[in-house]
Amino acid sequence: MAIAPIQNIAIIGGTHGNELTGVYLAKKFLQFPELVTRSSFTTTTILANPDAIALNRRYVDRDLNRCFSPTDLQNPALTTIEDQRAKVIAAQLCPVDDSHTNFIIDIHSTTSNMGLTLLLASDHPFNLRIASYLLSMNPKVKVCFREPSNQASPMLRSLSPFGFTLEVGPVSPGVLNAQQFQETEHLIAQILDYLEAWNHQRSPNPPSQLPIYQTIKAIDYPRDQNDEITAMIHPDLQGRDYQPLEPRSPLFLSLTGEVIRYDAPEIVYPIFINEAAYYEKRIAMVWTQKTSVYYEH
Amino acid sequence: MAIAPIQNIAIIGGTHGNELTGVYLAKKFLQFPELVTRSSFTTTTILANPDAIALNRRYVDRDLNRCFSPTDLQNPALTTIEDQRAKVIAAQLCPVDDSHTNFIIDIHSTTSNMGLTLLLASDHPFNLRIASYLLSMNPKVKVCFREPSNQASPMLRSLSPFGFTLEVGPVSPGVLNAQQFQETEHLIAQILDYLEAWNHQRSPNPPSQLPIYQTIKAIDYPRDQNDEITAMIHPDLQGRDYQPLEPRSPLFLSLTGEVIRYDAPEIVYPIFINEAAYYEKRIAMVWTQKTSVYYEH
Repeated sequence: MAIAPIQNIAIIGGTHGNELTGVYLAKKFLQFPELVTRSSFTTTTILANPDAIALNRRYVDRDLNRCFSPTDLQNPALTTIEDQRAKVIAAQLCPVDDSHTNFIIDIHSTTSNMGLTLLLASDHPFNLRIASYLLSMNPKVKVCFREPSNQASPMLRSLSPFGFTLEVGPVSPGVLNAQQFQETEHLIAQILDYLEAWNHQRSPNPPSQLPIYQTIKAIDYPRDQNDEITAMIHPDLQGRDYQPLEPRSPLFLSLTGEVIRYDAPEIVYPIFINEAAYYEKRIAMVWTQKTSVYYEH
Repeated sequence: MAIAPIQNIAIIGGTHGNELTGVYLAKKFLQFPELVTRSSFTTTTILANPDAIALNRRYVDRDLNRCFSPTDLQNPALTTIEDQRAKVIAAQLCPVDDSHTNFIIDIHSTTSNMGLTLLLASDHPFNLRIASYLLSMNPKVKVCFREPSNQASPMLRSLSPFGFTLEVGPVSPGVLNAQQFQETEHLIAQILDYLEAWNHQRSPNPPSQLPIYQTIKAIDYPRDQNDEITAMIHPDLQGRDYQPLEPRSPLFLSLTGEVIRYDAPEIVYPIFINEAAYYEKRIAMVWTQKTSVYYEH
């Protein structure tokens, strides 16, 4: 695999101000930068949305992790707190000189039972290689990928083709979970160690095939004519992220007690089940298909 | 026990706008009032804080469940959204005629592992009797009581000596959990059925002794000189609400990995462990003592 050494790494916490795993890990790395320093690269740690962090809210005006499309970044008319922060972060990580950041770790958390999920910035073999290594080290790791749509991604991770959004859960917004904090810190250390080994041409070769979950579509809650939610995630589905959902399985339970079943013929693997921040995005869960991908060493 | 029939009952949801169990139960009861109707009393269902519900936030300006002290209710200078709502609710539930509400069920949820907790409005034998009945019906039920302080309570439940705040958890704010929704609905139906039976002088006699958890003190997170949190709930304590905490047991885990232990000699029973909304109140958990109380039939 012909990849130049990774020279500049960015670790981001607090892209959503109430996702405390990332907020407190970033604060720790800012206080003890030696924890994320290695000999062959520089690491920049950023608290992405200080105003939202101070308010303990996901965002102030607009979801920061939807502000990074090239069009929006170049649009001077967009001046919300998050649009401004996106431009500041993009300018810091993607300067016009040759110090462009080439690996991004953006730390998020979720109320869904996502374990330690890697959302790939791209399906480049280098990302797959690192993901395969992390999978081989820890069974809690899951790997997700969304096929690029026609539109450029508005996610922070899209500032580089290399890297991951980490989704750690289940945990409530506004809550710091010590076990998840430690597991995420350990995962980040494994990523940094692997990049260091890569730069020194001594990185281990993980399996060249790995399971990944490819997103198919997002599913909304059932709603009435007033747009009010009329059903909840069914208790049998709650917490079963990454488990197969078979035809005729319970999907929702209406507020009045009726079971709404999954009525398509193929097995899907739901993720982001009952994520608090996705109610407003009209997403009750995201269906994925489980596949194997190969990459060349 | 000489208690007149219970004639007016209030069921409250959305006192905190992002605690969706109560919000959606109240919406359901408003849509289907027959569910909370019985022959011997009237039931009023209230969505307590519509502005906070619309924003999916705990409150807009101020915690509504701290706005019900008699002093604050009588203070015309207090005009925040929540102060105004408190006055409207108090006027509705406590009119000067003889239709004063005499039983209040205020539905809350929590990120702590509180199961189905009854926070008693008072330790009046009538509350203990109903609590004992509910305990005998469902092992998930726990009963808590806080000794009155010198100050009048600012909680909504204090509008009547009879009733409970329900604390249902663990669940994230902004998340509707179907199992908890159903369990809470069932618990409320049991309360209403018991009150109906009481009014007809045919209520069962539950055990006259019951375990309750009396609050001792609230414990803050360790903090640095900038008031920043320096430690998290220890993983061994997370989710262990109502379990005994023994001397020398782990209490907190610092962000840098040091264990902070419980250093008092007596066993306590922590509750509200890692409640999201209590970070700003400087409460990491609340210590209780477990005791038995008796009441006269």
